[in-house]
Amino acid sequence: MDTTQNGQAKEEAAAAAAAAAVARDGTVCGYESLDRLLRDNLRPEVFQEVSRLLIGLNCGRTLEAVPLADSAKALSSECNFDIQAFGFTADKELLREPRVVRVGLIQNSIVLPTTAPFLDQKRAIHQKVKPMIDAAGASGVNILCLQEAWMMPFAFCTREKRWCELAEPVDGESTRFLQDLAKKYNMVIVNPILERDTNHGETIWNTAVIIGNHGNIIGKHRKNHIPRVGDFNESTYYMEGNTGHPVFETAYGKIAVNICYGRHHPLNWLAFGLNGAEIVFNPSATVGELSEPMWPIEARNAAIANSYFVGSINRVGTETFPNPFTSGDRKPQHADFGHFYGSSHFSAPDASCTPSLSRYRDGLLISDMDLNLCRQLKDKWGFRMTARYELYADMLAQYLKPDFEPQVISDPLLHKKSS
Amino acid sequence: MDTTQNGQAKEEAAAAAAAAAVARDGTVCGYESLDRLLRDNLRPEVFQEVSRLLIGLNCGRTLEAVPLADSAKALSSECNFDIQAFGFTADKELLREPRVVRVGLIQNSIVLPTTAPFLDQKRAIHQKVKPMIDAAGASGVNILCLQEAWMMPFAFCTREKRWCELAEPVDGESTRFLQDLAKKYNMVIVNPILERDTNHGETIWNTAVIIGNHGNIIGKHRKNHIPRVGDFNESTYYMEGNTGHPVFETAYGKIAVNICYGRHHPLNWLAFGLNGAEIVFNPSATVGELSEPMWPIEARNAAIANSYFVGSINRVGTETFPNPFTSGDRKPQHADFGHFYGSSHFSAPDASCTPSLSRYRDGLLISDMDLNLCRQLKDKWGFRMTARYELYADMLAQYLKPDFEPQVISDPLLHKKSS
Repeated sequence: MDTTQNGQAKEEAAAAAAAAAVARDGTVCGYESLDRLLRDNLRPEVFQEVSRLLIGLNCGRTLEAVPLADSAKALSSECNFDIQAFGFTADKELLREPRVVRVGLIQNSIVLPTTAPFLDQKRAIHQKVKPMIDAAGASGVNILCLQEAWMMPFAFCTREKRWCELAEPVDGESTRFLQDLAKKYNMVIVNPILERDTNHGETIWNTAVIIGNHGNIIGKHRKNHIPRVGDFNESTYYMEGNTGHPVFETAYGKIAVNICYGRHHPLNWLAFGLNGAEIVFNPSATVGELSEPMWPIEARNAAIANSYFVGSINRVGTETFPNPFTSGDRKPQHADFGHFYGSSHFSAPDASCTPSLSRYRDGLLISDMDLNLCRQLKDKWGFRMTARYELYADMLAQYLKPDFEPQVISDPLLHKKSS
Repeated sequence: MDTTQNGQAKEEAAAAAAAAAVARDGTVCGYESLDRLLRDNLRPEVFQEVSRLLIGLNCGRTLEAVPLADSAKALSSECNFDIQAFGFTADKELLREPRVVRVGLIQNSIVLPTTAPFLDQKRAIHQKVKPMIDAAGASGVNILCLQEAWMMPFAFCTREKRWCELAEPVDGESTRFLQDLAKKYNMVIVNPILERDTNHGETIWNTAVIIGNHGNIIGKHRKNHIPRVGDFNESTYYMEGNTGHPVFETAYGKIAVNICYGRHHPLNWLAFGLNGAEIVFNPSATVGELSEPMWPIEARNAAIANSYFVGSINRVGTETFPNPFTSGDRKPQHADFGHFYGSSHFSAPDASCTPSLSRYRDGLLISDMDLNLCRQLKDKWGFRMTARYELYADMLAQYLKPDFEPQVISDPLLHKKSS
């Protein structure tokens, strides 16, 4: 494996090629996104039909391209990040005005080598992300979400505790940095950090801080489900969150945050829905070998099942650490987590979704969404009303008992020899 | 809309064209499946990468093509139905032998016009499906599932109660027909019927009867969640099931049945998982306009989240009824439900899935699956252990109270005017 610091440079070079390339081993690589791969390789009419099947477009609804401000486009080309904007449509209602909000997601790679002084690493990320936030502000974004633990490399693969030094209190340096921008752009910002809880014995949490559009801190949510899979050694660093499933009522709608691995838990998505979320963000850090085929499935399923919008964010790039580590897979030690494949995107409650951002490059994805669509889909499909929650409250209560017996009906002829 | 009886003939003609055609309005139509559309229109190396992203293949695992018995192939060409077979792979374990079972799904259109005498309609379907079951038997299928209410047209759009005459007791004509075949082929058969419950006031249920490999009836499950969407007027005919979430321990593994609309309910999928299901079938009847972009998402999400296999079945064809009906969408009356788009497929707990059967033609889809894969994925991802069910048992219990207050944290500056 690549244990040098040039992984990022290589990926940027690969990304510079607009279309897919074929590697020496015959595999396709270097393409920007699934959408781009299909668009570049299918006739337009076939691409349209594939899109209808895959991402629910042209199926009653269309996805509109939203024009971008020139200043945002200038920042994008000057600072070398992608910017894309779409608009989900909803029916016009008779008694409610449309409630269109503009929502943004930012995905980014780290900046300095992980061997650089910690504070330099953090501030370099701040400075890299700032023009992306400026572009969101210039584009009139109302609610913006950054990626999981955006202010640091995703160092939890290493199991080295020194990375805890990067943790911050809820009102720490990264929050303050974003509070100024939130106020400047009248924008709600979701700020996922590694949290140091000074009031509770300096414990560590994986936390999203919700910053209001006046720069105030509305509240926080702590990651509910912690992975123990592959190199995701996060359970070495912090415990399951203790903040329940809060929904934050902001100036632009009711939002919630399902952090990373929580996306594998349908009950976590459900609880945010029951508390009234209209948009649930899923700031993540996940790698291709492990999860790429799951990535578009889980967020879209959550949007469909819970009649809300989902904004999914994954970081990009390969982060190489100073000291190699093993992965419990019998392979030799190595110093990186694998490739974080980006692919941030939005899913809507009507089963449609936007194309994804690049698998390689930093990017800002913007989407307009009429929050009225949530209730329209509830009325259409009636999932909440047909859900029979009483069955499941009882089922879970039974399941929790140590002597729970599953409901199994055995074939009485199970051990009869076949004639 | 087409109110004649020739809808099926037209679809069969369209299906005869192997590759996609472009209709007069510029849309692509007549293609067999998404897999075929992509395979026919992409270079092999691009198709391979798209498959990796979309259906999780080549991502650590591959899907093997399984050779078919000549007698099965002969039945397929003689009786004009597709037959495809694949095999999911699993790791070899050190302490358990592989538990490979061969599982089949059958999708089919109806046979006679819906104006024909009821008994003729039912028996014509029996006779059409028989060679498909014979082909499954000749292929060594261990567990076979038919589509929802396979013994009748999906007449619930009409709201006419006379279709209730087609309902049968659990041990009725269609069950007896399948019991003989189950015994003959030493095969478990899942038999989804419209049930007449003679012991409870002759009420109607949407039920799956589980027939053991000795031809015995192991038990039944009644559809838990009933739709009220589009033309799905099933709630006019029967109520929510009262059989819980049973898992049937058969000679070939633990199976359960999530009937049709229950697939939109993550809790329904979850409950079958908590009761220990290794394969959950989803016999369905659903139409393109309404649900096609959701179809591959929900089943795969269930397989991932619950670490089991899913077999999804949808009927094919357009069924035209004698008396037109309206749809509550302000459009003129019409006499069909729309196109049932088939596309039956299997999903595995590792996020992979098989290609789908045709959108137009009858078909038998077979897949080998090593049930050991379920526990392997549980050990890898740990979803059960990280699920925190106690949080959700409590959440649901609270939610059920009429005076439930959602957990909402409001921005105290919500009504402050922006500076």
